[in-house]
Amino acid sequence: MSEGALGILAGGGPLPGRVAQAALRAGREVFIIAFEDFAEQAVIGEFPHEVVRLGAAGRIFKALRAHGCKDLVLVGPVRRPSLLDLRPDAEGARLVASIGRAAFTGDDGLLAAVVRVLGDEGFNIIGAHEILTEAVGRSGQLGRHGPDAQAEADIRRGIEVVRALGSVDVGQGCVVQQGCVLAVEAIEGTDAMLARAGGLLRPGLGGVLVKMVKPGQDRRADLPTIGPRTMIAAKAAGLRGIAFEAGGTFLTDTEACIAEADAAGLFLVGVTPELTEEKTPVFLRSTT
Amino acid sequence: MSEGALGILAGGGPLPGRVAQAALRAGREVFIIAFEDFAEQAVIGEFPHEVVRLGAAGRIFKALRAHGCKDLVLVGPVRRPSLLDLRPDAEGARLVASIGRAAFTGDDGLLAAVVRVLGDEGFNIIGAHEILTEAVGRSGQLGRHGPDAQAEADIRRGIEVVRALGSVDVGQGCVVQQGCVLAVEAIEGTDAMLARAGGLLRPGLGGVLVKMVKPGQDRRADLPTIGPRTMIAAKAAGLRGIAFEAGGTFLTDTEACIAEADAAGLFLVGVTPELTEEKTPVFLRSTT
Repeated sequence: MSEGALGILAGGGPLPGRVAQAALRAGREVFIIAFEDFAEQAVIGEFPHEVVRLGAAGRIFKALRAHGCKDLVLVGPVRRPSLLDLRPDAEGARLVASIGRAAFTGDDGLLAAVVRVLGDEGFNIIGAHEILTEAVGRSGQLGRHGPDAQAEADIRRGIEVVRALGSVDVGQGCVVQQGCVLAVEAIEGTDAMLARAGGLLRPGLGGVLVKMVKPGQDRRADLPTIGPRTMIAAKAAGLRGIAFEAGGTFLTDTEACIAEADAAGLFLVGVTPELTEEKTPVFLRSTT
Repeated sequence: MSEGALGILAGGGPLPGRVAQAALRAGREVFIIAFEDFAEQAVIGEFPHEVVRLGAAGRIFKALRAHGCKDLVLVGPVRRPSLLDLRPDAEGARLVASIGRAAFTGDDGLLAAVVRVLGDEGFNIIGAHEILTEAVGRSGQLGRHGPDAQAEADIRRGIEVVRALGSVDVGQGCVVQQGCVLAVEAIEGTDAMLARAGGLLRPGLGGVLVKMVKPGQDRRADLPTIGPRTMIAAKAAGLRGIAFEAGGTFLTDTEACIAEADAAGLFLVGVTPELTEEKTPVFLRSTT
């Protein structure tokens, strides 16, 4: 990292605050661009920050430069804006024109374009996972419970489905029960998908939630995130556990996730999908 | 077709009755196996029929043979049963064992297996689309309204997404607005997906519903179906139109669909996806 304050482009949830704390602990100043309607005041309020509309690119660049930010982190979910929602300022309009409408297709098209534009503007984009290494879910079983054979089969099926979706730049999750895909996530978010899956559950062994990074996804832009609330929602939906992509998923609070999962009787496992020659995803659990 | 009554294995909706009428008009007797909890009495009640649980394979075979049915049609949606829901009779248990649990993975795995098993039992399976040819949606614009450039782009994106999902044997539909995939269909059904998409709609031009046959799907087992109710649900969700796979989608009542679409200001188009060398789906409208 170069010198100067770390610029944090903050969406929702607790992670922007965690990134800021980690930087301050490492002796680095921070300055937060808090995206209006997304960043939470309770999370970012204690740090130097400015609340800015997503489309106000000119104001964002000016504030980042005024605070000497050269390194930037993008962290916390932001719902993709429509072109109309965006209401870009003059600088924003110039960028939208240079990015092109095509970037508004797909979830990641836009984020990848934003990362590219920020690079063109001379900023250096750092992945939040490079800073919050301790929040990145590791491989293997995390809590007291583990998946049985049916759950492992459901996880394999879920990996296959999420990867197929990810290949066309949609969603990061699905719910599988006894081999049947109950629900697939688009932009509604994991909690809404879990609630829906709960209503579609069939008799017998419950389902599993699978969250994966999209193939080819720029990990500096957006990683799947789960937290204690995800455990509670999964339990309420009648699920038996959660599988996330090891090394590519944030656990907003690992200890609390494990405690909730243990209390709810859910398994929580980090999986590493690998494609064999037959394009069959393989479920690998670490033995540590 | 061979002689004897046409056996109709009937799920929900109006199509089983339409198949029966078409057969009777052609001078052929019919006998309906009405699947309990799915087939609608108002639709099948006027025809010779027997209400049978899905799992009661022994009873189904016996009834079909008693009525001299050699040709069978599977028509009307049936929610995939879990193994527990199925409660197979002795014959059913034998078939489940021969089909294997694997068939309960995926939407079509089971249907394809059912078609194979029925063939093994000496029945001849006829696609409902071969009988109800006039109910199969044709290519091109059906009503008064047509898609504009944004809608065509959304249709292309939807085709890409539904095909990716279909390649892993999930769902037949999605909703796209301004390039963004609002909702993807798993087992919840099109109406539930439309209701959800309505709540996720962004400002500006509304979205489109895209329904496609899965690549490799056995068309004798299950085809996407839309009806006048789909038009009403699409309108309520703030959509601008519906694109279906031409030659592979049932319109339960074409006239009523067009009337509803015209009244609601929706377009209704049959599309033919073709893959170019770059694997890009191409949107082809017939010029007729």
